[in-house]
Amino acid sequence: MSTVKSSIYKPLTESEAIALAKRLQLFTENSNLTCKEIGDGNLNLVFKITDTDNGNGIIIKQALPYAKVVGESWPLTLDRARIEAHALLKQSEFVPQFVPKVYYTDEQLAITIMEDLSHLQIARAALIEGKELPLLSTHIGEFLAKTLFYTSDYAVNQHFKKSLVKQFINPDLCKITEDLVFTDPFFNHDTNNFEQELGQDVERIWQDQELKLAVAKLKQKFLTKAEALLHGDLHTGSIFADENETKVIDPEFAYFGPIGFDVGQVFGNFLLNAFSRNAENQEVLFTHIETTWNVFVKEFSKAWKNDAAEIFAKTEGYLEDVLSEIFEEAVGFAGCEIIRRTIGLAHVADLDTLQPFDKKISTKQLALSVGSELIKNQKAIKNPCQFKEYVKQTVSN
Amino acid sequence: MSTVKSSIYKPLTESEAIALAKRLQLFTENSNLTCKEIGDGNLNLVFKITDTDNGNGIIIKQALPYAKVVGESWPLTLDRARIEAHALLKQSEFVPQFVPKVYYTDEQLAITIMEDLSHLQIARAALIEGKELPLLSTHIGEFLAKTLFYTSDYAVNQHFKKSLVKQFINPDLCKITEDLVFTDPFFNHDTNNFEQELGQDVERIWQDQELKLAVAKLKQKFLTKAEALLHGDLHTGSIFADENETKVIDPEFAYFGPIGFDVGQVFGNFLLNAFSRNAENQEVLFTHIETTWNVFVKEFSKAWKNDAAEIFAKTEGYLEDVLSEIFEEAVGFAGCEIIRRTIGLAHVADLDTLQPFDKKISTKQLALSVGSELIKNQKAIKNPCQFKEYVKQTVSN
Repeated sequence: MSTVKSSIYKPLTESEAIALAKRLQLFTENSNLTCKEIGDGNLNLVFKITDTDNGNGIIIKQALPYAKVVGESWPLTLDRARIEAHALLKQSEFVPQFVPKVYYTDEQLAITIMEDLSHLQIARAALIEGKELPLLSTHIGEFLAKTLFYTSDYAVNQHFKKSLVKQFINPDLCKITEDLVFTDPFFNHDTNNFEQELGQDVERIWQDQELKLAVAKLKQKFLTKAEALLHGDLHTGSIFADENETKVIDPEFAYFGPIGFDVGQVFGNFLLNAFSRNAENQEVLFTHIETTWNVFVKEFSKAWKNDAAEIFAKTEGYLEDVLSEIFEEAVGFAGCEIIRRTIGLAHVADLDTLQPFDKKISTKQLALSVGSELIKNQKAIKNPCQFKEYVKQTVSN
Repeated sequence: MSTVKSSIYKPLTESEAIALAKRLQLFTENSNLTCKEIGDGNLNLVFKITDTDNGNGIIIKQALPYAKVVGESWPLTLDRARIEAHALLKQSEFVPQFVPKVYYTDEQLAITIMEDLSHLQIARAALIEGKELPLLSTHIGEFLAKTLFYTSDYAVNQHFKKSLVKQFINPDLCKITEDLVFTDPFFNHDTNNFEQELGQDVERIWQDQELKLAVAKLKQKFLTKAEALLHGDLHTGSIFADENETKVIDPEFAYFGPIGFDVGQVFGNFLLNAFSRNAENQEVLFTHIETTWNVFVKEFSKAWKNDAAEIFAKTEGYLEDVLSEIFEEAVGFAGCEIIRRTIGLAHVADLDTLQPFDKKISTKQLALSVGSELIKNQKAIKNPCQFKEYVKQTVSN
């Protein structure tokens, strides 16, 4: 693993960012450039540099050596910039249309320079505004199928795959997921963050041994199942989209894990948005879940048939078994995502912006019930149709 | 990963081996030493150096940059010497009584200097001679429980475990197992090696889609399930033993894999020896299997209760589920081991030395049936008692 020497690393200023872009000849000598730092100051600096003459722009993203969460600073490896850049480059081998172009990386400065996507909107925000994003799930299904299949042992010879596993060992970022998704929400831990009106619901989760046993096993899969190169944080806030285009960003959590984890985070975040809507407006989200899965199956199966390196790929029933295990795990991981986004450290605006307060609380109670049911009934839920039925049934109870 | 520069590496001669031992002060200045190269010339040089005055000795093991198999040479990384030495050192943290002491390692020369165990006998040879080795399975059960539990995510924080995973990424040796255990025997591949009288039985295996589907899934687990630091090649030829002592050697295949693989290889090799015996002499092997498992469960459970780092360890039913999954996988892996040792590249003397020829063939046919049944009935076989029943039933059919 390349490490960053602190003597070389320093955070860029806006003028240094412009100077770097010019030195790399990403603009012409005489371009009139503006630079604005648009990051949330949480994990990264994000400089948007624009040529005022023609509007062309780039993004310079620089990792900060800490994460600011609820006022505190956690030290966080700069190595995640290397992981992110390499993940983007790897994904672009299979789905260049769905990831930002990478122009330059500098591991010592923890910098990645990439395509400016500000003509698009973050999918979470668009969905909260009620936009349909009609191609979103078609694109995400294909993104998932191709990035995951083509980095798995089904497609890649194991020598090369093991070198990739080593390249993407990502303990710091995995630890965040381990704690915030799979551990803290299920115990009375300090990082949790929920309204006191949810106290009883949360207590029920902490006491539910059946639920916790299922979560323990999902956590163990997250820790040990090195199946494919995951995005690792594939929620709707990691997707830029509009009516025609979809770009998946921020793969700094990338590592080799279970395929169902990426799929499940997508399902979970679509559901979280569905919960925030009135019943009559939820259907589009269930359709997004169904389309994501159907396109995933279609593209994964096509890749399997055309490009599998695994000699057993032709064995009767193998592909079907692999897909059904991915779905089962995705259902469980979706449940974990829903619960942690409701009572854990990192919330989602879909729920947190709900008004009035009573509605927010009842929606969160519903989210906790659905999350728990999905985790406990992974094996019984075999397709998006049953998935929707389970959700609707839990909602109506 | 450290790599060996070919300019520095060279195979030792016997006199160089003695000089090295003296330089390292493993003997006194005036010791009268003899040196004999006792390796099989296949993968490693093995120098046994003995002080003729008191009989004290050491072993200098040096990896060769190739493997000689059926007359051919495969290039093979010298990095396996580093893996072996580090695995021995890691195992000795938990079970120093069951591994040879390591006195010195040199990664560039691909050398490990260790305890001379020639007062013990290779367990396979002892079992073929009909010796009981009464403590063998008690020791192996404890070896498995402690080396596997204490290198798993159940015991180790994930940061440290991921650094171990990286340290033990072992593509060359894993590739051998992938091919010779999980692939070639199930297809008409050149490396296979079986008597033509087994042709029909082998053909049946190649056509059995249910069997191949189950093997495909076991192979995928071998490739992706980074559960604990395995020995990786734990057959009875990797064990030195006598009535009182047991030492597990040769962990050059060590890598992070599924716990059931090590357990299953032990089961499989005990069974292979059982097949080679008359019915009235088989019981001791079934007892070895049962004892291995029972001691494994006892020691693994004790370690879990006392030393688990995993916060979910106290969840009702979790330990039981983990153990039952290990057993299920071990049954399947045992089946793979039995089949590959019968028709694959690397055979075992237990079967190959059987006489007369007809008996050898019928025993191998039996081994293939039992191996197939174990693989196809993993889920139905829940304990050593049912394991024995399945074997006996297959034998009597």
